[in-house]
Amino acid sequence: MTKTVGIIGGMGPAATCDLMEKIIALTKASRDQEHLHVIADVNTAIPDRTAAILHEGADPVPEMVKSAKRLQAAGADMLIMPCNTAHYFYDDVAGAVDIPVLHMARETASVLRAAGVRTAGVLATDGTVQSGVYGDALSAAGVRAVYPGPALQREVMGLIYEGVKARAVPLERFPVRDILADLREQGAEKVLLACTELPIAFRELGLTENYLDPTRVLAFAAVRAAGAQTAVPDPW
Amino acid sequence: MTKTVGIIGGMGPAATCDLMEKIIALTKASRDQEHLHVIADVNTAIPDRTAAILHEGADPVPEMVKSAKRLQAAGADMLIMPCNTAHYFYDDVAGAVDIPVLHMARETASVLRAAGVRTAGVLATDGTVQSGVYGDALSAAGVRAVYPGPALQREVMGLIYEGVKARAVPLERFPVRDILADLREQGAEKVLLACTELPIAFRELGLTENYLDPTRVLAFAAVRAAGAQTAVPDPW
Repeated sequence: MTKTVGIIGGMGPAATCDLMEKIIALTKASRDQEHLHVIADVNTAIPDRTAAILHEGADPVPEMVKSAKRLQAAGADMLIMPCNTAHYFYDDVAGAVDIPVLHMARETASVLRAAGVRTAGVLATDGTVQSGVYGDALSAAGVRAVYPGPALQREVMGLIYEGVKARAVPLERFPVRDILADLREQGAEKVLLACTELPIAFRELGLTENYLDPTRVLAFAAVRAAGAQTAVPDPW
Repeated sequence: MTKTVGIIGGMGPAATCDLMEKIIALTKASRDQEHLHVIADVNTAIPDRTAAILHEGADPVPEMVKSAKRLQAAGADMLIMPCNTAHYFYDDVAGAVDIPVLHMARETASVLRAAGVRTAGVLATDGTVQSGVYGDALSAAGVRAVYPGPALQREVMGLIYEGVKARAVPLERFPVRDILADLREQGAEKVLLACTELPIAFRELGLTENYLDPTRVLAFAAVRAAGAQTAVPDPW
């Protein structure tokens, strides 16, 4: 009997679907009934996380906790949050429920450590970067984190907000190759797509650089924690 | 204030994601918070619907009703089921909750009628075909339904079960163009992809034939029923 996975979703909605698809792809199953029971709460009332961390925007914790409790009440045995920035509020969410909440950045750091990576480039929102969600998790695992310079970091934010979330600017307009080159120059052996909108952008752009996708890491960790067989041996 | 959409999912899991993506794409929104609140119960414990209808397989109604009640308790204001075959059990599910359940085949029939379509080809599971889920809905709307002959219908079942659900046979192996030609010869002006796995297969095969996707119709109807603005004027 496998466990039920609850997803605190809507941060954003597309990233929630992306995570669900990765859970399906990473589960070894040949018919519907062998897949995991997943309950996704696409709670779009959760305010923007970066705005809350950096610009005194509305506190996202109350709605995140509502989702967590709703999912626990609906029968979830564990929770996951497909939003890297949201992990700044991890303790508030994990403390509000009686079921475990997997930590995306810590799971990712442990995959990097296991692979012997010493320096990783982090592509993420300003909120994730400046709050140290990945800096702390990687540092605890003995991995050095490097980030794009200020001008290129603004392009990362544009790619996330204007490119994927708003679909207002074609993804091709953003200087993604310059961003990757900048990280390589700083010694990054691997690049983390540490905002859940980025794997969507990279897939659409046809980029298959030397990266690790924390959404895929989280999906893999959830499949394993739920007691299902994974379709591949690791999340790379 | 928009309404919360509950999805009785897991029939199959990939089709649930496909519906969720279509809801996102069909909602006029420029940031996360303008999207709909959606709760998806990917209940993979629901037994196979076609097996239940045609081969005395386990009754899917108890698990479908569990999901319906779980979603209502979690705050859903309406329910949708991204599984055409499941609509054979529509009355059992709709009768078990106090919130409306949109009907995929009836929504699709009304879109066909509005477009002046007189004959539609139906690609679906044996369960959907033989139980008359679409035959009844189309007939009530004054649209004639035609189906592939027996040998080609077996290929449709293979495409759904071995191609998409099990990923055991490459999609290119199935004679999809022969199936479409057979429907055209019977007078079909449009083809309904009336199993939720089929839009996934058609997208991957790069087929952009003259078809209507009931998953997209259902997503469109849900966005409208929830009170959000649609990104396009109709679901074609």
